[in-house]
Amino acid sequence: MDVALLARVDGKRDELSHIPGTSAALRRIKKEAYYQHIYHTAGIEGNTMTLAQTRMILETRLAVGGKSIMEHNEILGLDSALKYINTTLLHRVGRVSLHDLLQIHTRVLGHSDPLQAGRLRTTQVFVSNHIPPPPTRLQVLMEDFVSWLNSAEAAALHPVRYAALAHYKLVFIHPFSDGNGRTARLVMNFLLMQAGFPPVIIRKQDRMLYYDGLQMANEGDTRPFVRFVAHCTEKTLDVYLWAT
Amino acid sequence: MDVALLARVDGKRDELSHIPGTSAALRRIKKEAYYQHIYHTAGIEGNTMTLAQTRMILETRLAVGGKSIMEHNEILGLDSALKYINTTLLHRVGRVSLHDLLQIHTRVLGHSDPLQAGRLRTTQVFVSNHIPPPPTRLQVLMEDFVSWLNSAEAAALHPVRYAALAHYKLVFIHPFSDGNGRTARLVMNFLLMQAGFPPVIIRKQDRMLYYDGLQMANEGDTRPFVRFVAHCTEKTLDVYLWAT
Ligand SMILES: Nc1ncnc2c1ncn2[C@@H]1O[C@H](COP(=O)(O)OP(=O)(O)OP(=O)(O)O)[C@@H](O)[C@H]1O
Ligand SMILES: Nc1ncnc2c1ncn2[C@@H]1O[C@H](COP(=O)(O)OP(=O)(O)OP(=O)(O)O)[C@@H](O)[C@H]1O
Ligand SMILES: [Mg+2]
Ligand SMILES: [Mg+2]
Repeated sequence: MDVALLARVDGKRDELSHIPGTSAALRRIKKEAYYQHIYHTAGIEGNTMTLAQTRMILETRLAVGGKSIMEHNEILGLDSALKYINTTLLHRVGRVSLHDLLQIHTRVLGHSDPLQAGRLRTTQVFVSNHIPPPPTRLQVLMEDFVSWLNSAEAAALHPVRYAALAHYKLVFIHPFSDGNGRTARLVMNFLLMQAGFPPVIIRKQDRMLYYDGLQMANEGDTRPFVRFVAHCTEKTLDVYLWAT
Repeated sequence: MDVALLARVDGKRDELSHIPGTSAALRRIKKEAYYQHIYHTAGIEGNTMTLAQTRMILETRLAVGGKSIMEHNEILGLDSALKYINTTLLHRVGRVSLHDLLQIHTRVLGHSDPLQAGRLRTTQVFVSNHIPPPPTRLQVLMEDFVSWLNSAEAAALHPVRYAALAHYKLVFIHPFSDGNGRTARLVMNFLLMQAGFPPVIIRKQDRMLYYDGLQMANEGDTRPFVRFVAHCTEKTLDVYLWAT
C-alpha cells in the first residue's frame, strides 16, 4: 500500500486541524460538505435528487413535487443517522457496540422502511458477484465484526485503512435487507471522524471505481479498496483546505 | 342509549351484507371510502392534504411539491396500518394482543417517527383537559385494556358500543407519544370490521363533536361518544348503500 499517499493524507489532516473552529470559512465548508455527503451517498444507490433539492429538503423539510416520497425519506434517514453519529456516538466515551451499528441503521432506513430498520436480514441476498453469508450466521458474524472493530489489531492500523476495512467487512457480511452501503459508508466516516478526519465523500461519479475496489477485496486483495478510500479522503481534505 | 339508532345501524349493515362482493359498484365505493378514510383520519389531526392529493400519493407514491415530507409520511403510515389490519389481523383467528396494537402503531407512525413507532411513551403528555396516566403505569394499563377487549363482558356489548368504548379507553390511556388518535380510530375500525361493518369515517368537519364526546366520557358519561360513533357508522353505511 502507498505509504506516501497515507503520509500525505495525514499531513493534510494535520493542516486542517490547525484551522480554528471559529473560522467562518471552515464552518461554511463543513455545512456545504454535509449536504454534499448526503447527496453523494444517497445518489450512489440511485437517489435522483440534485444537490440543490437535497439541501432544500434538509433546510425546509418540504417535498419536491414529482419525486418519490421514498427518495425524500432516504435523504431524511441519512440526515438523522449523521446527526446521531455527530451528537451521540462521537461524544461518547467507550467502544463501538453492535447496538450502535443497529442504531445507525435504524435511522438510515427508518423513514423509508420502518419495519426493517435496525434489524438483521432474515433472507439471503445477492450483491452483483458476491453472495453474502446466510441469515443464520449474521448475529455471530456481526459480533465478530464488532470485536475486530474494538481489537488491538485494528487499533494498530492507519485510520484510513481501518475505516476502509471496516466498510469492506460490513458490506461483505451485508447484514441488512437494504441500506448496507449507506450504513457502511457512515460507519467508515464515523471511524474516520474519531481519528480527526472530516467525513469522506465517495462521489456518485466514482461509483464504478468504488464497486471495483469491493469486488477486488472479495477476490482477496483489499489494497485497491483501501487506496480508493485514501484517494477519496485526500480529495475531501483538499476541498476543505482549498475552501478555508 | 338510543336502541332505535343501533337497530337501524344493524339493519343497514345487514342490507349491505347482501350485496355480492363481485358488485363493481361495491368495489368502487370500497376503494373510494378507503381514500376518504385516510384523508379524514389524517386531516382530523391537522394534515392538510386534499382528498385528491391523498389519492395521488397512495396511487403513485410521488410527492406533492411544497407540502411537508411528514404529511406524506402520515398518509403512507395510515395506508400501511390499514393494509396490515386488512391482510393480517382480520384474517387471523384468535384474540387481540398487545403486540397487535403495537404493530398497528408501528405502521401508523413508522415513516414519520421511526424511533417512537411501536413503543409506549416514556414521558407525561396532556390532551386538552385530560391528563393521561404516567408512563410507569402504561404497560399494566395496556394489558388490562387488552384483557377487556378479549373479555366476555366486552363480547356481550353491541359492536358499535364495543368499538367506541375501545377507542375511548385507548385515548384515555394515551399510550403513545404521538399517533394515539389515529391508532384508536384504526382499532375501533378493526373491531367494527370484525363485526361486519365497513371502516367508519369520522369526518374532519365533525372534529369538535368528536372531541366533545371524548371530553364527556372523561367526565363520566360515555353515552354521547357511543352515540356519536353510531351516527358516524350510520352515515358511512348510508354512503355505501347509496353508492351500490
Ligand atoms: N461486489 C461487492 N461485494 C460486496 N459489497 C458490494 C459489492 N458491490 C457493491 N457492494 C456494496 O453494496 C452496496 C449496495 O448493496 P445493496 O444493493 O444491497 O444496497 P443497500 O444494501 O441498499 O445499501 P445502500 O444503502 O448502499 O443502497 C454498495 O453501496 C456497496 O457498498
Ligand atoms: N379530552 C380528550 N380526552 C381524551 N382523548 C382526547 C381528548 N380530546 C381528544 N382526544 C383524542 O386524542 C387524539 C389527539 O391526541 P394527540 O394530540 O396526542 O394526538 P396524537 O396522539 O398525535 O394522535 P393523532 O394520530 O390523532 O394525531 C384525538 O384524535 C382524540 O382521539
Ligand atoms: Mg438499496
Ligand atoms: Mg399528533
